[in-house]
Amino acid sequence: MRDPGEVAARWGYTGSRRHDLGSEAIMIEAPALTDAELRWLDAYWRAANYLSVGQIYLLDNPLLREPLTLAHIKPRLLGHWGTTPGLNFIQAHLNRVIKRDDLNAIFICGPGHGGPAVVANSYLEGSYTEIYPQITRDEDGLRRLFRQFSFPGGIPSHAAPETPGSIHEGGELGYALSHAFGAAFDNPELIVACVIGDGEAETGPLAGSWNGIKFLNPARDGVVLPILHLNGYKIASPTVLGRMADADVRSLFMGYGYEPFFVEGADPAPMHRQMAATLDAVIARIRAIQATARNGGSDVPRWPMIVLRSPKGWTGPKEVDGKKVEGFWRAHQVPLAGLAENPAHLAMLEEWMRSYRPEALFDAEGAPVTALMDHVPAGTRRMGANPHANGGLLRKPLHLPDFRAYAVAVREPGASQAEATRIMGAYLSDVMRLNASSRNFRLMGPDETASNRLDAVFDVTDRVWMEATIPEDVHLAPDGRVMEILSEHLCQGWLEGYLLTGRHGLMSCYEAFIHIVDSMVNQHAKWLKVSRNLAWRRSISSLNYLLTSHVWRQDHNGFSHQDPGFIDHVVNKKADIVRVYLPPDANTLLWVTDHCLATYDRINVIVAGKQPAPQWLDMDQAVKHCRAGIGIWDFASNDEGSEPDVVIAAAGDVPTLEAMAAVDILRRHLPRLKVRFINVVDLMALQSGDQHPHGLTERDFDGLFTADKPVIFAYHGYPHLIHRLTYKRRNHDNLHVHGYQEEGTTTTPFDMVVLNRLDRFHLAIDVIDRVPGLAATAAHLKQALRDKLVEHREYICRYGEDMPAIRDWNWPYETSAPSKHR
Amino acid sequence: MRDPGEVAARWGYTGSRRHDLGSEAIMIEAPALTDAELRWLDAYWRAANYLSVGQIYLLDNPLLREPLTLAHIKPRLLGHWGTTPGLNFIQAHLNRVIKRDDLNAIFICGPGHGGPAVVANSYLEGSYTEIYPQITRDEDGLRRLFRQFSFPGGIPSHAAPETPGSIHEGGELGYALSHAFGAAFDNPELIVACVIGDGEAETGPLAGSWNGIKFLNPARDGVVLPILHLNGYKIASPTVLGRMADADVRSLFMGYGYEPFFVEGADPAPMHRQMAATLDAVIARIRAIQATARNGGSDVPRWPMIVLRSPKGWTGPKEVDGKKVEGFWRAHQVPLAGLAENPAHLAMLEEWMRSYRPEALFDAEGAPVTALMDHVPAGTRRMGANPHANGGLLRKPLHLPDFRAYAVAVREPGASQAEATRIMGAYLSDVMRLNASSRNFRLMGPDETASNRLDAVFDVTDRVWMEATIPEDVHLAPDGRVMEILSEHLCQGWLEGYLLTGRHGLMSCYEAFIHIVDSMVNQHAKWLKVSRNLAWRRSISSLNYLLTSHVWRQDHNGFSHQDPGFIDHVVNKKADIVRVYLPPDANTLLWVTDHCLATYDRINVIVAGKQPAPQWLDMDQAVKHCRAGIGIWDFASNDEGSEPDVVIAAAGDVPTLEAMAAVDILRRHLPRLKVRFINVVDLMALQSGDQHPHGLTERDFDGLFTADKPVIFAYHGYPHLIHRLTYKRRNHDNLHVHGYQEEGTTTTPFDMVVLNRLDRFHLAIDVIDRVPGLAATAAHLKQALRDKLVEHREYICRYGEDMPAIRDWNWPYETSAPSKHR
Repeated sequence: MRDPGEVAARWGYTGSRRHDLGSEAIMIEAPALTDAELRWLDAYWRAANYLSVGQIYLLDNPLLREPLTLAHIKPRLLGHWGTTPGLNFIQAHLNRVIKRDDLNAIFICGPGHGGPAVVANSYLEGSYTEIYPQITRDEDGLRRLFRQFSFPGGIPSHAAPETPGSIHEGGELGYALSHAFGAAFDNPELIVACVIGDGEAETGPLAGSWNGIKFLNPARDGVVLPILHLNGYKIASPTVLGRMADADVRSLFMGYGYEPFFVEGADPAPMHRQMAATLDAVIARIRAIQATARNGGSDVPRWPMIVLRSPKGWTGPKEVDGKKVEGFWRAHQVPLAGLAENPAHLAMLEEWMRSYRPEALFDAEGAPVTALMDHVPAGTRRMGANPHANGGLLRKPLHLPDFRAYAVAVREPGASQAEATRIMGAYLSDVMRLNASSRNFRLMGPDETASNRLDAVFDVTDRVWMEATIPEDVHLAPDGRVMEILSEHLCQGWLEGYLLTGRHGLMSCYEAFIHIVDSMVNQHAKWLKVSRNLAWRRSISSLNYLLTSHVWRQDHNGFSHQDPGFIDHVVNKKADIVRVYLPPDANTLLWVTDHCLATYDRINVIVAGKQPAPQWLDMDQAVKHCRAGIGIWDFASNDEGSEPDVVIAAAGDVPTLEAMAAVDILRRHLPRLKVRFINVVDLMALQSGDQHPHGLTERDFDGLFTADKPVIFAYHGYPHLIHRLTYKRRNHDNLHVHGYQEEGTTTTPFDMVVLNRLDRFHLAIDVIDRVPGLAATAAHLKQALRDKLVEHREYICRYGEDMPAIRDWNWPYETSAPSKHR
Repeated sequence: MRDPGEVAARWGYTGSRRHDLGSEAIMIEAPALTDAELRWLDAYWRAANYLSVGQIYLLDNPLLREPLTLAHIKPRLLGHWGTTPGLNFIQAHLNRVIKRDDLNAIFICGPGHGGPAVVANSYLEGSYTEIYPQITRDEDGLRRLFRQFSFPGGIPSHAAPETPGSIHEGGELGYALSHAFGAAFDNPELIVACVIGDGEAETGPLAGSWNGIKFLNPARDGVVLPILHLNGYKIASPTVLGRMADADVRSLFMGYGYEPFFVEGADPAPMHRQMAATLDAVIARIRAIQATARNGGSDVPRWPMIVLRSPKGWTGPKEVDGKKVEGFWRAHQVPLAGLAENPAHLAMLEEWMRSYRPEALFDAEGAPVTALMDHVPAGTRRMGANPHANGGLLRKPLHLPDFRAYAVAVREPGASQAEATRIMGAYLSDVMRLNASSRNFRLMGPDETASNRLDAVFDVTDRVWMEATIPEDVHLAPDGRVMEILSEHLCQGWLEGYLLTGRHGLMSCYEAFIHIVDSMVNQHAKWLKVSRNLAWRRSISSLNYLLTSHVWRQDHNGFSHQDPGFIDHVVNKKADIVRVYLPPDANTLLWVTDHCLATYDRINVIVAGKQPAPQWLDMDQAVKHCRAGIGIWDFASNDEGSEPDVVIAAAGDVPTLEAMAAVDILRRHLPRLKVRFINVVDLMALQSGDQHPHGLTERDFDGLFTADKPVIFAYHGYPHLIHRLTYKRRNHDNLHVHGYQEEGTTTTPFDMVVLNRLDRFHLAIDVIDRVPGLAATAAHLKQALRDKLVEHREYICRYGEDMPAIRDWNWPYETSAPSKHR
């Protein structure tokens, strides 16, 4: 890549600071585009448009070497023309500057339905055929290219994992720009050109994403070049931004911190000149900003963006059946339909396709003519072949410290207290330290890093902050590696973009707010699922969540923040992509964190509390327990290798504490009752081996949970998930799950926090009810436990905290003498 | 309310058009606030602040009539001070203008943790004690008021259903402004003052909500007055908007279409003067806009908004332990903690509380002194008593046409085809017509009304559109009742606000995109759940969804749009709030729609396709079937009242079609096999009666599904939900569900559309496998069905559409002769 300062100087541009700009909308006039360049741009654009229309309509006759008949047309016309010519226009112009300046650029296609355009460009530049050799550069290849589009056994109608050069799936709108920022962070040489359609611009997540610019460091990060492509319409009506005056659009984006350049029109030749000149100016601005920042300047830059107003369905049919199509919403999908019923439409289609003059664009074999390749970049500079868009190619494993070094000393189970996430924070701070020079690890979260007690990372790094600071500010710096903005959407989008370009990260979030990104998780899971079937797509790092401040401990937030259903949501995804971990204490959390950071192509959900809590396992025990994912805790069991009378199981830190307290009650008062205690770290272990790779065999499951004994299961989330995971297991009819219940009587603020302390009594009562014969012999105990429930409830309503005996309860047994009190 | 023109004239302001404004940030100086008004504002504000601090800290000694000791302090300090004084300041000033101008205003408290402020104001104005008589206006009442806050058995720490005057729950941020717009639509006299914290302003959904102004009609709708309250910090770091320069903030909101007025400072007296003058100017602007619009003007107005920059934790401790607190993020929660360990903190708390001079604010009994009530509005003008914030008080039932009038004629099952949602559209257009004068019904959707084939509504009304139009535009008008913006968040927020203020509506959405609002559904479900336990909260209309373009028919959208899991998500909510309907055809959809529109306090999810499909039930049959929610279709069964060999069940329109085709295969080839066909409209009928009010009794369930025969169930969504709903049923072990599988081999575009047509073969094969003895006798048929699977797959990959025999299949039996082909 050329020296940024040199490029900037060439364009006579020396710098850009916020507030330096006048009040008029910037529109660049009459550039020095050579006639040859103009001819190439127009030809390349026509070729891309031709290939796009062909994909939507044609089964055969790809070069129109014979008159078009119905036999050449697909039986079902599925695709979107409207956004496509604008996308082709943009890609043609990007190619010109990439080639000229040897730019390292990738393309993010926000408009969901731009599939034909992105595929057409990849085909023209040659990257498509390299990845899919059967799509040859000849007439037969064209036929296959056209046929496969939105056809059974073929490719999707939108940009997708199958699309070379894509890191962004079309479909649900709103995340293009956050993906773009994620890709640009820590990629100082990269330019991420990101097209945002005006439909997408109406979404909340996209509107919030413009703020990403406040977190982009020109010295360290790459560039996001937003291209707001306003064609004015969505499916059936105008768009908000499409109908805004330029002055308002300019005011809006100036407010967000950008310098918008406008390119507007419908006449191709002037539009080419305008776009080329604008792109030249924009690249010069970018180089100037980078040169300033990389020479030690500390101005907050005003980054350029482009507002491109071009007709929807540009160069397509102007009118169909007397109704406006080009430049209107009717161009959104397939402008000419019902070809079988309407021969005039068939003729119009042929006329439209021939208007691109395919005979001048493709040679006798059907390959693109040589002249078309003049300004197309080569090798990995082609946007369809840039390795940043296949991040696994560039991904380097994270340097991970030895997690054992952070272990909490656990002399006896329950003998020490720790805040699990604080221990994890110490580990993460060393992950930050070890990978500081690689610049490939970031921590994201909606302003909750310290609240979630991961603040040890601030010993090593800071929060990214480009804007003004005051003396009292702490841990804010332009080169911070912790990213906090109160937008789960933006955190998630940034992290996805960062991972998809080959880096690593973790997002921490309050459990109850993670539903905000349900839909984004869906899309990412689908990306991973499809990518696994594409040999050329290399593995990327897993998307790791730490969900803390979980639903059982919501002190400051009252009952507003409830719902453990994100686990249910992710478990709906394909089994080999999803992992859910519920480590019961700090040492298990360390193992799980270390494990997740080393995995790839997965979505790992870790649920762990941040409050002081008893620690159960020393590190050796934790490693064994986590590797198995599930296991009997001998120190908590008194069945001593024989068949127990009852199994008490727990998944989650608070449920484990309550279940252990229940075991204590039972062992203390019913010393002859044989109790087996099982703890589940890896929720997927409960499923059958044929449903999930981590699933226990039937034999192992029966060995743990017995064939016929009651199992009382304390779970963190909605109980039905445990039933769902186990309902084919032999002993399922004896499984009784205590979990989060919407039906609960807890409708007031932090009742959950204290009332969950009643679970120990509920669990013990359930054991008495379920173990045959116990109801009669333990009637007094059951009554006493019921009294405790009432007594405790009265107490907390009076004093606002747990009864001391409950608050201060701890596991009273020594390991060496399992049935003796310590 | 006074005449808007008169009020405007009083302030010498005559109108406001877009682009009329200069480039300087507007800050109003030195108003004519009388000394008495200033004294009152300050006293009222001190009282509200005092009551807020009291709620966070005190168990006892509410008037500080004795020295503060630890015994008076809550054992756990849970709450948020930071945002509170600013909220109190705003409410004091709103009260002044409400009282003076007799305004009809409600207050939406965006900052999630502003509970203490909203409660304090309701208490001061008297509405709190009217609703909660035990919270008396004396010292004892104050003690209870303080104690209950964020205390077991008490009230949440945020604005919530329990809070008088609230229609918006704190907790998850992002939806305050969309709720405000929803409340203002069709409420021409209402002013919705909406405070947006600068944390919330970072969220995507809030950023997108500013566009609501483009859909607000000053002639017909009320006013939203956004008050962007920038105190500069979230939990532990500065906010993006908080650190932006005024010029950038102004540019941003000018771009969105607002005229921002700035109020900035920390010194109370000048701040009171500035805020009062600003509010006067803003009210004058609003009145002028309304006067212009209501006198026939058609300018697109530039609506005023207020940007209030005040210190976080204003008037609280300036420093604690040498660290900045007031005006910094450390003021976010409880500024003084660890009182037991740190006697100096206890003294600081006492000093802080006494700085408000409680002895001057409360009389000997502990009631607010008379002078405090001078400018407080009376009766329903009090923001805590405004009936718009308890919408059920104002709600009028919708006028519903006779749904039978829209029935599709169904001479014989399967004999006619219809697009179910198009029929529903005809019905909805008459709902629009019948309620046009009441102005209390709106249809929301992300630009999909026509795509979802509800376009008959455009015979009666238009899309709301305030901005510029061009001649080609269709169905856009300022007084339209269909609201389309490509933001599911905004549609959902608008609809919630509209319902919460006593109106009616329906949201249509592509099924796969509805996960975008998972988290909003959680919050609304919780609102409904809590409201049910509050006798003073009146019932509101149900939140109705039509999910169409469902996962089985995604022609244009390929495989990007997949996931039927929203049903799973809502079923996690409290049983008596949630309903899920899967009508199999148009007439059942009509019944379900009519039913849902008449219900209240529920979330109704209707899933129905838009594609042409066979119609099964005439209207009489549809009514009977839907009232039961589930039932045997005699015309499809040949068990003729005896015990069947197999039960085939279906829930959903596409599954019903496939299951019927499977029945046809079985009856044609295995005429002696006794098949019972069950259709499920109301998914909740599958649950036990003790789990859901719509649940079948065990006896009825066994009567339908038998005690021991195989049940092959074709379902629309993830199969495990059917298992979950039925796993306690007697015959559950024989239930085999065919549903949506993430594991499917369908990874290419519209494969789903055609491949689901293979379900009929899979279902029939499963019957052969499951019915004892059939595997041997029907081996040839099974082989033939397997061949069909291969044949069909080959065909669609070649031709891109279903085999004609499958595409054109229809139910071939006449009702009168169930076993004879038609």
